[in-house]
Order: sequence, then C-alpha cells, then structure tokens
Amino acid sequence: MGIELGPNQYGKAEVRVVAVDRATPRHAVKDLTVSSALRGDFAAAHLTGDNAHVLTTDTQKNTVYAFARDGIGEIEDFGLRLARHFAAAYPWIDGARVEIAEHGWDRIAAGGTGHDHAGHDHAFARAGAEVRTAVVTVAGGAEHVLSGLTGLVVLKTTGSAFDGFPRDRFTTLPGTDDRILATAVTARWRHTGTPDWAGSFAAVRAALLGAFATLPSDALQQTLYAMGRAALETAPELAEIRLSMPNKHHFLQDLTPFGLDNPKVVYHAADRPYGLIEGTVRRDDVPAAEAAWAGTPGFC
Amino acid sequence: MGIELGPNQYGKAEVRVVAVDRATPRHAVKDLTVSSALRGDFAAAHLTGDNAHVLTTDTQKNTVYAFARDGIGEIEDFGLRLARHFAAAYPWIDGARVEIAEHGWDRIAAGGTGHDHAGHDHAFARAGAEVRTAVVTVAGGAEHVLSGLTGLVVLKTTGSAFDGFPRDRFTTLPGTDDRILATAVTARWRHTGTPDWAGSFAAVRAALLGAFATLPSDALQQTLYAMGRAALETAPELAEIRLSMPNKHHFLQDLTPFGLDNPKVVYHAADRPYGLIEGTVRRDDVPAAEAAWAGTPGFC
Amino acid sequence: MGIELGPNQYGKAEVRVVAVDRATPRHAVKDLTVSSALRGDFAAAHLTGDNAHVLTTDTQKNTVYAFARDGIGEIEDFGLRLARHFAAAYPWIDGARVEIAEHGWDRIAAGGTGHDHAGHDHAFARAGAEVRTAVVTVAGGAEHVLSGLTGLVVLKTTGSAFDGFPRDRFTTLPGTDDRILATAVTARWRHTGTPDWAGSFAAVRAALLGAFATLPSDALQQTLYAMGRAALETAPELAEIRLSMPNKHHFLQDLTPFGLDNPKVVYHAADRPYGLIEGTVRRDDVPAAEAAWAGTPGFC
Amino acid sequence: MGIELGPNQYGKAEVRVVAVDRATPRHAVKDLTVSSALRGDFAAAHLTGDNAHVLTTDTQKNTVYAFARDGIGEIEDFGLRLARHFAAAYPWIDGARVEIAEHGWDRIAAGGTGHDHAGHDHAFARAGAEVRTAVVTVAGGAEHVLSGLTGLVVLKTTGSAFDGFPRDRFTTLPGTDDRILATAVTARWRHTGTPDWAGSFAAVRAALLGAFATLPSDALQQTLYAMGRAALETAPELAEIRLSMPNKHHFLQDLTPFGLDNPKVVYHAADRPYGLIEGTVRRDDVPAAEAAWAGTPGFC
Repeated sequence: MGIELGPNQYGKAEVRVVAVDRATPRHAVKDLTVSSALRGDFAAAHLTGDNAHVLTTDTQKNTVYAFARDGIGEIEDFGLRLARHFAAAYPWIDGARVEIAEHGWDRIAAGGTGHDHAGHDHAFARAGAEVRTAVVTVAGGAEHVLSGLTGLVVLKTTGSAFDGFPRDRFTTLPGTDDRILATAVTARWRHTGTPDWAGSFAAVRAALLGAFATLPSDALQQTLYAMGRAALETAPELAEIRLSMPNKHHFLQDLTPFGLDNPKVVYHAADRPYGLIEGTVRRDDVPAAEAAWAGTPGFC
Repeated sequence: MGIELGPNQYGKAEVRVVAVDRATPRHAVKDLTVSSALRGDFAAAHLTGDNAHVLTTDTQKNTVYAFARDGIGEIEDFGLRLARHFAAAYPWIDGARVEIAEHGWDRIAAGGTGHDHAGHDHAFARAGAEVRTAVVTVAGGAEHVLSGLTGLVVLKTTGSAFDGFPRDRFTTLPGTDDRILATAVTARWRHTGTPDWAGSFAAVRAALLGAFATLPSDALQQTLYAMGRAALETAPELAEIRLSMPNKHHFLQDLTPFGLDNPKVVYHAADRPYGLIEGTVRRDDVPAAEAAWAGTPGFC
Repeated sequence: MGIELGPNQYGKAEVRVVAVDRATPRHAVKDLTVSSALRGDFAAAHLTGDNAHVLTTDTQKNTVYAFARDGIGEIEDFGLRLARHFAAAYPWIDGARVEIAEHGWDRIAAGGTGHDHAGHDHAFARAGAEVRTAVVTVAGGAEHVLSGLTGLVVLKTTGSAFDGFPRDRFTTLPGTDDRILATAVTARWRHTGTPDWAGSFAAVRAALLGAFATLPSDALQQTLYAMGRAALETAPELAEIRLSMPNKHHFLQDLTPFGLDNPKVVYHAADRPYGLIEGTVRRDDVPAAEAAWAGTPGFC
Repeated sequence: MGIELGPNQYGKAEVRVVAVDRATPRHAVKDLTVSSALRGDFAAAHLTGDNAHVLTTDTQKNTVYAFARDGIGEIEDFGLRLARHFAAAYPWIDGARVEIAEHGWDRIAAGGTGHDHAGHDHAFARAGAEVRTAVVTVAGGAEHVLSGLTGLVVLKTTGSAFDGFPRDRFTTLPGTDDRILATAVTARWRHTGTPDWAGSFAAVRAALLGAFATLPSDALQQTLYAMGRAALETAPELAEIRLSMPNKHHFLQDLTPFGLDNPKVVYHAADRPYGLIEGTVRRDDVPAAEAAWAGTPGFC
C-alpha cells in the first residue's frame, strides 16, 4: 500500500473583466467574473515541484483579457472559446472548465423628452444582485454548457400553503393555508445543442418567474418542480435543469401581547436558519452527463 | 480629577420587518431594516447596573412591529412616528434616532396577454442592491429628517477625464482624457419641511442619475458637486445633501505583450484600493443642523 | 419522451446552536452551525404538493436543538447521531446528510497570579475565522464521516519559489526563486474507522501546518501534496484528504519610480483574481466512496 | 440665496500593504489596510473640474507603499508619518486623516523538539477576525491619535443578569438573573501623549478583557462602562475611550414541546436584530477633541 495523488485541478479564480463595445456611439458593456480550471497530468508539480506542465494561472488570466479584445458576446460562447483553447493548449491537458458570472447593467433613463426613449448611450446603472452564469466544460472530446442564474430573489404574498406533513416527537410547526413564500433562485440548465444563448436565457428566466408567480403552491418543492418543468417546456434544447432554492422564512409576528391582531400584515424576515430545497427536472430520454456538473456546488 | 461617563446611546439594530398591504387584491410590500437608538439619562445602568431607566431594546423591537400593524407608509413618516414615540416615552429620555433601510421589490411581469400590463398582483422580485434610507432624529424639541439612498452603482463608458493634477515625487499616474467612471452612490439629504416623501425621493434620485449621466466629468469631485447641485435645484425643500462616492477603478488592460492593441475595449475592474470622494452641497441661507447627522458614518 | 423529477434533497440550513457544559464551575462552550438534508421518495411533494412524506425542515431544526440537550460532544459524533436519526425516521427516507461547522472559543486569560493558569472559567474570546467542519452521510446502510477545517489562513515569507513553467503567447509572468506564499486552507478528510475525533483532528491539523511551514515549496501544488501526505502519514485512519487552497497573491511593489529599491520588503496583497489549487491525496488500497463527498463544493 | 460647496474630503481607501522585516532569519510581518483622506481647498475641482489642487489618490497610495520601505513600526507611528506628510504636502491642504487596520499573524508552532519554543521563523497563521486600529488626524497644527481594536468577540456563560427595567405596553421580555452575554467589541481610545504604542495597546486590551470576564454584569451598559474605566485606570495616557458593543443575543431554546427541560444548556444564537450599546468613558479634566473623532462611525 502507499499514498498517491488523486484527482486534482487548478486555475485562476475571479478574473474581473469589463469590455466596452464602442462600435457605435451607443456603447454596450459586458461585466464578467471569470474562473478557469485545468485538469490533466500535473503529477510532477505535486510530487517534485516540477512546473514543466503548469500553464500558469497568471497566463490563464492574461488569456481571458486577450480573448476579450475582439468582444465577448454571449458568456456561453466566450466560455467555449476559452475552454477549447485551454483544453488544447498542451498534450498533457485533458480538460478545462470555465465558469463565468455576468453582472448586468441597465441604461440610465435618458431623462429628456427627445427621441431616445431607450436610455442613455453610455451611462449605466448596476442591475442588481442577480447574475447570469455559465459553466463550460471541455474534456475528453466532449463539450458541455450549463447556463444559469443566481441571486434571483422572489416573493409571493399569497398563493402559498404548507400543510399535511407528518408529525413526530419533534414537530411543533402548525400547518398554514396562506403564507409568504420567498426564495433566492439559483438555477443551472444543461443544453443539448447550441441555441441562441441570449434568447434561450430570456425565455428560461421568464418561464421560471412565470411559474413562481402564477402556480398556487402547496410546498416549495412543488414550486421548484413547476419552475423546472416550465423551463423545459419553454426551451426544447434543455436536457435538464437543477434548482437550489432557500426557503427564506417570513414569520407572522405575534402582536396579541400588545392588544393587536395581525391579519397577515406584519412579518419578521428571518436570516438563519432557512430551508434549502434542491432538485432536478429533466427529460427522460436524454443521457446523463455528470461531467457537465463536476465542481458545481450542491445540486447546481 | 476622575473618570466619568461621557456621551452614550443604546438601541436595537437591524429589526427586519416586512409589511403587506392587502387592502385590495393588488398587494403591496414594504421591506425594512429598522434600527433605533435612545439618548438620555442612563447613568445608573452604566454605573451600577440599575436598569430602571432602560427602555429595553427588546421593547424597541416590539414597538417597531406594533407600529407596522396599521401600515408603514413612507419610511420618513414611519421613522417620525417611532422617534416621537421613543423620545416621549419617559422623562429621562432626551432624544431618539431611527434609521431605516427600505429594500425594493418590483412586480413580476404578469406575462399573459390580458389587461394587467403593470405586473403581477402578489408576486415580486427583489429590485437589487440599492436601498432607500431615512434617518430621523427627534431631540430637544427638534425633528430632523434625512432621506437618502445607498448602493446605487453607476458607470460611464466615456465622458470622463482626469488630468491637470500636481505631480510630486510619488506621482506615477498619467493623465487621461477618456476613462471609465464608476461609483456606488451613497447620498443623504436634509429636508427643511415635510414634502411628499415619495415624490421628493423620486425627483432627487432622478436628478442624481441625470447629472451623473450627462455632465462631462473632469474629476469625480466635479461630478459629485454637479449631482448634489442638481438635487438641490430639483427639490426646493432640500437644505443640504451629502454624497459619498467611491471611485471604483477600471484599469485599461495592457495587451501589447500579446501583440494586441486595446482601443478602450478591455478593462480590469479592481476591488481595492479605491478612491473615496465625499462632499456636501448646501444652500447658503439655511442654518446648519449637525444634530441631524450625528451617528451617520463619514460624510453621510 | 417526457419530463421527470430527477435527484433532489431538502433540509434546514445553518441552524445556530450554542451548548454550554455546566457540569463543573469550569464551563465549556460548543458553538455550531448545523445543516441537514434528506434524500428519499419525495416525488409527491414535487408533483402534487402532497407533503405526507415531508419531515419538515422546522422539525429538522427542532431535532438539532433537542439532540443538543444532553451535550454535543465531538461534531462527528453529533453529526452521526443526527444523520442516523433522520435516515431512519421514515421508510421513505433513504439517506441523510448533516454538515456542521464548529466555531472555536478560547478561554480569556485569567489575568491574576493565582493557580488558574489555563484561563477563565466562564469567559471566552472567539478563536478566529478558522472553523472545524464535519460532513456525515448515512445512506443505503453505509455511514461516511468527513472531518475538516476551513479558513486556516497561512503565509510564508520565504522558502517558496515558482519557476520552470512553460511559456506561451500569453505568458508574461517571470519566474521567482523567493516569493511570499499565502493561502487559506480548506481541507476535508475521510475516515475509514471511528478514531478519537478530537485527537485525530488535532494531529491532522498539526501535520498540515507543519508541512506548510517547513517544506521548501517550488509550487503550491507541491505544498498541497506534501500537506495531504503528512496528514495521511500522521493519521492511519485517514483514507483520503481533499485540499482546496487559493493562492493569495502578494506582489512585490515596484518602488523604483520613487528612487527606492525594494529588497522583498513591501508587498501589495491582492484580493482578486487568485489562483485556486485543488487536489486529493489518498491511500492506494482504500476503495473510493463518492457518496461521502456528494454535495461538498469543488474538490472538498 | 444660492447653492454652495460645503465640507468635503477625498482620499484612497483600503490600500493593502504587507511589509516583511528580514533583518534577521526570524522574519516579522506587518499586514495593514490603510486609508487616507485630505481636507483643504479643493473647491476648483468640484466647481470646474480643475485638478491643480488635487494630490491624487493614486499618489496617496504610492506614498503608503514608499513609506513602508524602511519598515512600518507601530501603526500609530506609521499613521503619524503619513498624515504629517500629506498635511504638509501643499499649502492648500489643511489636514489629513489616516486610518489603519492591522491584521495579526501568529507564528506557526515550530513543532520540533529543538530550542525554538516560540514558533517558526518565517511561517505564520492569521490570528483571527480581530484587528488593531489607529486613526491619526493632523490638522490645524494639532495631532490626534486614536488607538483601538475591532472584532474582539467575547462571551460569558454566566455572571450576567438583566432585570429591573420599566415595562410599558410593548414590553414582553422577562427579566433574567443568569444569561449568556456575548458581544463584539469595537473600541477606540484617544491619547494625550505618545506612549509606547505596543505596550499601551496590550495593556488596554488586557484591561478590557479582564473587566469583561470578571465583573458581574447587570446590564451590558455596566459592562461597557467597567471596561472603559478599567482601560483608563490601566493607562494614564488615555484621555477617553469610546466603545460600541452589540448585544449578540443567545436565546435559551424552549425544549418543553419535546418533553425535555433545558437547564441553561441549549441556546439559539441569533443574527438580527441585536442590541447596540455605545458609550464614552473619559477623564473629567481633559479637554474634548472632537477633531480626533471626525469621520469615525457612530460612537467610535
């Protein structure tokens, strides 16, 4: 018996790149955080500190900036360009994984009464905490693309119940037929082809929001499944979607000690603990592709 | 000589209250983080642990929830109701300060083809990192209201220069006639009366954004002053405005080592350090009111 | 073809429990953040909102508090007690995963000159950002325990080089024979038996630190491997260890524009981007157990 | 009437500088985050974008690195060197404020059986979340130094009561004669002279901890005052100390629904809301110096 090196990878994390498209006076901004990771034969670096196989993380960073020179386009395409480059860079590199988060910017309203109804040409406001994501894996001759989003915080003031659960010695929760339902959606979905990335993203996001908003919910699990199902029904190119949705509890505040009723008006928004519901919705005729998901935390 | 107790205050910080207006099927949500602090004669608690004068922080929290029972309204009004209550609660309490952050929620698009063009009735998405703020101080017979916002992240891809600065032994920065300008605006403004809070807030926010977007900038200080000036010109009830604006540096990436030019396309967005520009714009005929600002960090 | 529910789990995340051992006047504190997740047949909740199979996350939280009543002991044991309970709670539950972070508290120095050299009996100071971790999985008749730590930030001022790497079109980094090496260690290790958890943890932690401190490093990969190897050599009950180590870059500041040399004195500590080195060190005669690692992010 | 520029300042925030003392093989590390701010006549930059008076924030950053070349020493001294330099840099600069946070590093245990009992020569582990702080203000011919610390998290498992408070309509809290008391101390203290900074800091920190640990507490206010008083009694050079101490609530968990008692064993550690107790302890014969405190948030 002995001790050996097992699976390993390395890369550069959280390269912050902002690219400006100045092709016309109406500028556009792409604001990304890019992480890359390489897999292959790096045993010598581990065992003896021989770096002859190490495409340095500094070079990976430089490559991200260089590849942005001619424009970024959709993050799935940018990730594919980078991952293909890294995976083919040296014979001893077997695979590359590129993870991208895109931070949105909205145009500031032009304000005037003129013709430009669609916002200012070169001034922008950050769109919020939600980010669009992509994970591209190129390895063993296969390419996998996960699109996604994270930080999409949503809330319903009605249309959500939770009851009918089993009760054991440690159960104190009463059932409810009308509660606030709030969550922060993280979703990733796997493509079987290469769709119009921007259009597909917009359609999937709208489907997720629409299902959340309109489906009467008897469990956050039911909402999660309905959201995933809506995404697959909307976008035929999707093979599967994984959702992670914390149940951000809003507790009805007891005001009776103060001689007040509380007809579902005043709530305490709790930080911790929170429920965490995670699940997959998939087509039953598409082969699994675990390599696409390696390295993504939890269920997505 | 001896040792004595100096200025002191205490309160409950970061009470998370969400209130739902269900008066019609078209629900509305108010999502606040409320902090209160009391000043007065609390010497006995400090010197001997005698709590006879201590309106407990738990009671302060309860009061926030109880006062939300009949609706919150604008945060300036809610803060005034709370601060007046605390300041008058016991003879030994001299003053109260209530600080509120309001987290925005947008209606989720209704999606359907029906008549409801303005979004879903009871489903919402979190509006982003920007929060609206209020600081209300009631003390010594006077009432002060600061309205404000924080986390408003904005960026211009052109129309910003920085040059003409003095050069000493430690200066290496070249001047530039065209850079990315990005900042996260924190602003607080003091009112001399009680305007339509919501309308005033919207007008001031629009004025700040408009000035940022349209003014050619030769220094972030110039932009700050122009933003403050635009706010005062827009809203006659404002006595002064204080702005704190980090200069979130975007450095043009040098691509020449890779045989590439970089015609203001690819930037590195840096985290730290950052410039920090802070300033006040005020009317020259309105008396100062430092009591309004006590406890707000830095310049706002 | 159709759309179906795939893998899923749910639970309560980040239950904050502090337990005090008052058996003697010399109190002891255990401060934990506990997350639980259940797997099994929860299809009805997803498909129809039928919660008859849902052991609620509120009950999971209550169970954590109830189980703490008689003391927590080592977190691996506490995790096993909880995971066994959840996995056996109902026939339709196949498995449970319990993740625990333990926040350390040191005794405040007693200060006096008396006999109590080991610190105060009931007053404590938080030990820092490092936390001890455990992940316990009970599923399909098998039990897996991962011990670990995260947030162990270490730095060497010498004894670290990095050179001999290949140079491509995008490489600009010069090699160095003496740099600052800094990282924040996250490590998880899998046990094949049930050792003295506290003793094993202390030995592994000391081995990791010792290897980091004393091994001359030609690559962070080499340091990572040496640390893992030292852990396995120290603790025979370990089957494998996975390490995730960001390369927290410290760049030598160029002072020549100011007429100053910089003989490795002044560095700029960068936030982002950072290298990220991840790897596994394992015994070659112990079967893999991927079920132990499901749900842990990245390589650990 | 008109609109005018009011008080303003600008500077570089959060310069991360790490300096290594290599004078002997036993290296020492100083790890600082430095922010500087300048006050003076910067009206032209605000009004017209004329930067002739603007000592750029980039130059401020460079100056921090250059001044670290010959060693940093105690942060109060480093802050004084920088603030004096900036305040005297140009005639139009009236004052400078330098704020420093020092992140501690402990030596990694040498581990061996040799003679070096005090830890490794050049390998270090981060000391935790607590940081030592200094705020130096040089303005109008006066120099002010505030020393301090933040992030010192402490907890007592007994010796803390809270009762005897007034009860109004909104009071529900029962009194208690034995609770967990936990807080995160932020303290700043003003010096009247220039003591041995390191020795003074160590003495004040020990006094704060000793008072927290040993004084029976009937209110967190009482503990705060006792801590401040102990600091002043220990260090004659201190004029005043300001303390900000959140009451990090630990609620005894009700286990009776599960048929269990809870003899002060199991607690829920809450995140928000929290109490916030702030106060000043000072000598009654030392003049106030508000200029020393300008720009520090809240009470310290």
